[in-house]
Amino acid sequence: MRAPTDLSVDIPILAADILALIRARAPRVHCITNAVAQTFTANMLLALGAVPSMTIARDEIDDFVARADALLINLGTLDAERRAAIDRAVRVAGSRAPAHMPWVLDPVLIDRSPPRRVLAAAITSRRPCAIRLNGAEFRALAGVEPTAETLAHHAAAHASVIGLTGDRDVVADGERMVAILNGDPLMAKVTAMGCAASAVVAACHAVEPDPWLATAAGLLLMGIAGEVAAEGARGPGSFAVAVLDALHGLDAATITQRARVER
Amino acid sequence: MRAPTDLSVDIPILAADILALIRARAPRVHCITNAVAQTFTANMLLALGAVPSMTIARDEIDDFVARADALLINLGTLDAERRAAIDRAVRVAGSRAPAHMPWVLDPVLIDRSPPRRVLAAAITSRRPCAIRLNGAEFRALAGVEPTAETLAHHAAAHASVIGLTGDRDVVADGERMVAILNGDPLMAKVTAMGCAASAVVAACHAVEPDPWLATAAGLLLMGIAGEVAAEGARGPGSFAVAVLDALHGLDAATITQRARVER
Amino acid sequence: MRAPTDLSVDIPILAADILALIRARAPRVHCITNAVAQTFTANMLLALGAVPSMTIARDEIDDFVARADALLINLGTLDAERRAAIDRAVRVAGSRAPAHMPWVLDPVLIDRSPPRRVLAAAITSRRPCAIRLNGAEFRALAGVEPTAETLAHHAAAHASVIGLTGDRDVVADGERMVAILNGDPLMAKVTAMGCAASAVVAACHAVEPDPWLATAAGLLLMGIAGEVAAEGARGPGSFAVAVLDALHGLDAATITQRARVER
Repeated sequence: MRAPTDLSVDIPILAADILALIRARAPRVHCITNAVAQTFTANMLLALGAVPSMTIARDEIDDFVARADALLINLGTLDAERRAAIDRAVRVAGSRAPAHMPWVLDPVLIDRSPPRRVLAAAITSRRPCAIRLNGAEFRALAGVEPTAETLAHHAAAHASVIGLTGDRDVVADGERMVAILNGDPLMAKVTAMGCAASAVVAACHAVEPDPWLATAAGLLLMGIAGEVAAEGARGPGSFAVAVLDALHGLDAATITQRARVER
Repeated sequence: MRAPTDLSVDIPILAADILALIRARAPRVHCITNAVAQTFTANMLLALGAVPSMTIARDEIDDFVARADALLINLGTLDAERRAAIDRAVRVAGSRAPAHMPWVLDPVLIDRSPPRRVLAAAITSRRPCAIRLNGAEFRALAGVEPTAETLAHHAAAHASVIGLTGDRDVVADGERMVAILNGDPLMAKVTAMGCAASAVVAACHAVEPDPWLATAAGLLLMGIAGEVAAEGARGPGSFAVAVLDALHGLDAATITQRARVER
Repeated sequence: MRAPTDLSVDIPILAADILALIRARAPRVHCITNAVAQTFTANMLLALGAVPSMTIARDEIDDFVARADALLINLGTLDAERRAAIDRAVRVAGSRAPAHMPWVLDPVLIDRSPPRRVLAAAITSRRPCAIRLNGAEFRALAGVEPTAETLAHHAAAHASVIGLTGDRDVVADGERMVAILNGDPLMAKVTAMGCAASAVVAACHAVEPDPWLATAAGLLLMGIAGEVAAEGARGPGSFAVAVLDALHGLDAATITQRARVER
């Protein structure tokens, strides 16, 4: 077992191992995610090697979550049925024995809607393994600018890994921190790219017990897939298609050669 | 009229005829399908030459079904509004005079959710023209392994054609059986590919009165489109795009040359 | 300020200006649109340079609309939650001071569903800046065939611009009328292309105060993007991808060279 403060791990090599495990085990990732993101998220999980499911129906959510290996909670298009599904799904994930099922929170666009921000705060208190968000969403959730200190503080206070995405991604768990420089500006021009990143992070949690490493690996895989995809893209349409192809075709050599990771 | 036990029909040529009829008549296919599958299903129907509609709203479902030529019932993301829509839609399809409107059932992922399995059994008793499912879903619905005998038995018992998809597709109606060997493994890496296959089958039912032939034709068209698409694909993203192009461009020569059909 | 009857404006050049403004200001466009159209619509708005949001949730709709720069109301897949969201959203848009927020109505498929037609009539009476529809939808809404006179009459009677799309698009406000001949038949083979056109029109309203010009500009940008995309497309799948690339890459020279606008 790695000590929690061990920063010497080689994240790219470990990310390649995590990808290999996902492809070998095909973990089930149940996603409660917004209506705009569902199809692209499902396709990204399939391209990665995981198996998505997406139902939010009252009668079904318990069974689907109980049969899953990881859970994603995304707060987009937050209608009444999604709210109820989120509550039940988090309860089912938390009650799995002997170990809780890992779950990831994506508090998408909480900066635009006060009730959604209130819900995000309530869910954060239920201790997701990781929270994947952008700068504006972090500001809305934490009430402060994202800096190395506030990220570490927030992660420690909530016992959750923070995965902040933007021009550079930062992953913090209160003791460890890493920056990932991979990615491409076209990623911001495709709807649900961040939502899909959160789903990829959740899939990594299904096979990797260290939540900080799982989060960093997921964001690194996304960033590299985005870079590979951008090379042949003629715009955001062909880019979105190429990201799926790139994630599906990613190999260990590409990951280790392209990774730009800073501590 | 072909006798019900006539196995000498040339399925590829008839499938090409059915495709020509769909393109000539542009049948309307109303789809009650899951939230993840809606967009891809609509685009597959358009690529085929049919006209999709997708509403599940209480006030609208009767009017949309009444104006359709075929109906698809897919049990994915089965929320309360979808449940109610399914019940009404099947009733409207069954009450059309002089002949019932053809409808196809896709009991997607019933192996994951007991309440969904119960609903699937109830809907099966209302006699869909065809049921399109995979092996795990057949096991959950019929309680036995899919074999030539159990497929034929189940089809006869429910007076529905069974279209089982997998490495090889099998279409059975209790008296006739055919295996379709076309397709590509990338089809399993694109979400909603099976759901779209069910919609294509429903479109075939809109123009072909023999439900066994309509089901076989639909699955053959899907399998060949998948094969054509796979030849130029660089992964599941470009494959999904190419399947739409291939279905849209499919001609009789390609169908008859590529079809691999076994009795 | 241009006089309302001034027909000498150079629409292609002004459309290029409007596109430049959208890219510079990145207006937020809140879309209440059907479940099938959400993802493609969001991606088209991003490709254009706008920022989409899509929630229909009761608790959130007021906040999202209040923070938006334009609103799209599309009547597809019209469930109870969408109905309620539409009513609130139009009220919020109308109450913005000092000027109302521009909003666009897309009465999709009202020819298929009498209750939807009734709702469309009620919403029309609340004076959308523009109504984007096809011939069948105009017939259902206005009760007459679309001609130069009926379009002008209907636009004047409701104080809304009519943007009628089809083989040729016509934009009328009661005093001015223009026909746009750009576009490609493949646009009818991709689901949500018309819905996305309405969203692009809404984005143009966010930066251009003349609703007739904003509507014409939006439809012109869509038509030209469709033409550019069709040149390299192998079918509706690659076409849909290429439309996103084309809209993202559109420049003033392409717009002015390709525009086919008739008065």
